[in-house]
Amino acid sequence: MHKILDSIDATQPAALDRLFAFLRIPSISAQPAHRQDCLRAAAWARDLLAEMGFSARLSETSGLPGVVATNHAAGPHAPHVLFYGHYDVQPADPRELWQSGPFDPQLMDSPRGKKIVARGAVDDKGQVISFLEACRAHIAINGKLPVRLTVLLEGEEENGSPSLAELLAKERETLAAADFVYVADTNMWDPATPAITASLRGLAAVELRIHGPSRDLHSGFFGGLALNPIQVLVNILGQLKDSQGRITIPGFYDGITPLTKAQEKAWAALGFDTAGFLGGVGLTTPAGEAGQIPLAQIWARPTAEINGIYGGYQGDGSKTVIPAHATAKLTFRLVAGQDPGKILDAFEAFVTTRLPPDARAEFTRGGAAPGYGLNPSATFLRAAQAAMAEEFGKPAALVGCGASIPVVEAFKTQLGLDTLLAGFGLDDDCVHSPNEKFDLACFHRGTRAHARLLAALAVPA
Amino acid sequence: MHKILDSIDATQPAALDRLFAFLRIPSISAQPAHRQDCLRAAAWARDLLAEMGFSARLSETSGLPGVVATNHAAGPHAPHVLFYGHYDVQPADPRELWQSGPFDPQLMDSPRGKKIVARGAVDDKGQVISFLEACRAHIAINGKLPVRLTVLLEGEEENGSPSLAELLAKERETLAAADFVYVADTNMWDPATPAITASLRGLAAVELRIHGPSRDLHSGFFGGLALNPIQVLVNILGQLKDSQGRITIPGFYDGITPLTKAQEKAWAALGFDTAGFLGGVGLTTPAGEAGQIPLAQIWARPTAEINGIYGGYQGDGSKTVIPAHATAKLTFRLVAGQDPGKILDAFEAFVTTRLPPDARAEFTRGGAAPGYGLNPSATFLRAAQAAMAEEFGKPAALVGCGASIPVVEAFKTQLGLDTLLAGFGLDDDCVHSPNEKFDLACFHRGTRAHARLLAALAVPA
Repeated sequence: MHKILDSIDATQPAALDRLFAFLRIPSISAQPAHRQDCLRAAAWARDLLAEMGFSARLSETSGLPGVVATNHAAGPHAPHVLFYGHYDVQPADPRELWQSGPFDPQLMDSPRGKKIVARGAVDDKGQVISFLEACRAHIAINGKLPVRLTVLLEGEEENGSPSLAELLAKERETLAAADFVYVADTNMWDPATPAITASLRGLAAVELRIHGPSRDLHSGFFGGLALNPIQVLVNILGQLKDSQGRITIPGFYDGITPLTKAQEKAWAALGFDTAGFLGGVGLTTPAGEAGQIPLAQIWARPTAEINGIYGGYQGDGSKTVIPAHATAKLTFRLVAGQDPGKILDAFEAFVTTRLPPDARAEFTRGGAAPGYGLNPSATFLRAAQAAMAEEFGKPAALVGCGASIPVVEAFKTQLGLDTLLAGFGLDDDCVHSPNEKFDLACFHRGTRAHARLLAALAVPA
Repeated sequence: MHKILDSIDATQPAALDRLFAFLRIPSISAQPAHRQDCLRAAAWARDLLAEMGFSARLSETSGLPGVVATNHAAGPHAPHVLFYGHYDVQPADPRELWQSGPFDPQLMDSPRGKKIVARGAVDDKGQVISFLEACRAHIAINGKLPVRLTVLLEGEEENGSPSLAELLAKERETLAAADFVYVADTNMWDPATPAITASLRGLAAVELRIHGPSRDLHSGFFGGLALNPIQVLVNILGQLKDSQGRITIPGFYDGITPLTKAQEKAWAALGFDTAGFLGGVGLTTPAGEAGQIPLAQIWARPTAEINGIYGGYQGDGSKTVIPAHATAKLTFRLVAGQDPGKILDAFEAFVTTRLPPDARAEFTRGGAAPGYGLNPSATFLRAAQAAMAEEFGKPAALVGCGASIPVVEAFKTQLGLDTLLAGFGLDDDCVHSPNEKFDLACFHRGTRAHARLLAALAVPA
């Protein structure tokens, strides 16, 4: 292993040359004017992989092509990893806020040492090259990779992945053969602490419309006698949570594995800056379930959120109307163990049993995806923890993510694959913002950790 | 008296000629193209009053003029009545639904006898002429009216009365000298039962905005930990009424005189068709305070009505946002004894004491007017009841109106005058709709009742 790590250390200038060449291509997928640049970036990545010994090609879609590359020199019995990344980047606007050209990558000084500054420095070109440099070192020292590897680079991640489902379906045979997916598009907990994202919250969306009178009514002539559907709506939604912030829908928490004391302790030890997190958006006080630590409130516990509400008059001044209907849009953030369909069924029953005479509830269901939790005994998780601990001298934080990551959902749904989420970005990397950067130390130690992970994956359980 | 009534009966054809001449003028105040017609109608009414012996003139405003006429031949000690009506009418659209020309008045057959069909037949030209014919009969028989009478005809009632306040201020000396206002723009309870509107509900309007985070948040990254102002809004407004439909704002019902058993019995005896009233708008069940009869719920009891609500995402599909604020628009219908300012103060306290940490409430007050209740011992009310009972052989129903009538409020606020509301329209008159009509019997018996009222007012208490 030390030869591989030494090689990584020794070839850093060349690695940066390769990354900078990639960064100079303004592959902004959201802007049609940059379509040729996106195609250039795809071809550049394909050629890089081919030069490294992969069987590499572009895979056309109705949008931008994917890059698909395989290297199965490790033999049919080696573990098979599907590495996912993306070659496209966010727009660089507003350009006047950049200290250097967004597509003129620079190595700049920072309080924590050197940093790579460019659009895509960390999201995701830097993370992709960091991983591929680890592969390069393995091949350089051992002539081959320790695992079978398939690389999939998408070209539309920053534009909502409109062709991802098509790409996964088209390349199903190649991709679904993997044991798991590895995505290095996430962050470390802090500059000294690596992190593995072990859970994502799912989502179930529903629109609720309460119907009352057959038409809008004059509140003078009808008010007091006629049902007001806005009042019905607030009466019911006002019962959604109890005084402890717990959601009162019967069965809502069924199937959820409570946070273990060990996990809660580990998360408490991360020193999450609750005051800073809330203070940044004008708040001071955790508003979720009483008795849950703040990180559990956003990572491990489900929510019932009213995202929108409307009914009756919304213009200036007042209008004395009792409207015919009122509407709320809700989403439930779900955690592993909850079934989105059952949650929506339970919500509908919760509403329906609370309807007064003459009120009718209309439900329109939207997207639904279950929460995602890594199996804590997964082989690849054990290998990742070992690799991280060796490189950083401390265990990786097993963190959660309160949102969904659509690509993880797509891999699970379309290919049946679990995903290891472990990247080396930092919260101050200005992702999607001007002056995006990737700490050189993160790039470099990330490559070393990737190399260790590839080796660890090859060790039989 | 019988000579006066005989005169009314005998001169009905001439009375109808006068009314039809008035109805032929398309005095649509909302349509600038009809401005000259409005001025013609004003001049026509002024000339009619002058011909009857009134001192009559137009009173210019920044909009359409008022008609002001006085007849004080009854002498300085006679009661002084201010009669209010309006010479303008609603637009006649959609014209294709009229069975005859809206400004080509016709006497048509109907199941209840003849009816006068035209725009303005009842609202308000028919009611105005019905009253003036009663005056004409008094003058014809006795040479003068039994009361001092001031007539005020507005020209913009169907267009929101934009110049009414100006007109009342300008004519204050003439108008405020009256003892009370008489408005004949309301309906009978049914074709056999006259009605006096003895109470109007007032109004207090307020917009409530709940502020939470300083900006819209991603519900994945913040959901569960961050305050959702829509949830705060529905939590608070969901507590506005108890399970019995009573408004829970402390002090809300203070100062209200409960409905007497006699009044409740009298209203119950009116045989209000609750099922028909609610059924017409798709409802079946009274939704107001338990224990209050339906007519009390719309006439005698105050309300708290959410007229509008909005916050967060309202477009198609779903958006996983926790919005920075959420807003509701409320109006309280008030009854006599409630102070609008105190009600809004109490509502603000109700909201403020329920705010969780980090939530801030912003209140924007709108219009406010107290409820109106006739003094049951008012001389003019006793006279009106006697006149109605004599003409119809049964007492007038003392009804309420759940809405405000702005002109009544203006007379009270600007001139300090109470208003007697007693008209002879019926609920099926198609007011503001095609084929507006006034039953000939209502026009005729209305004139007779007006004549009796004028006589009754002159009898010392």
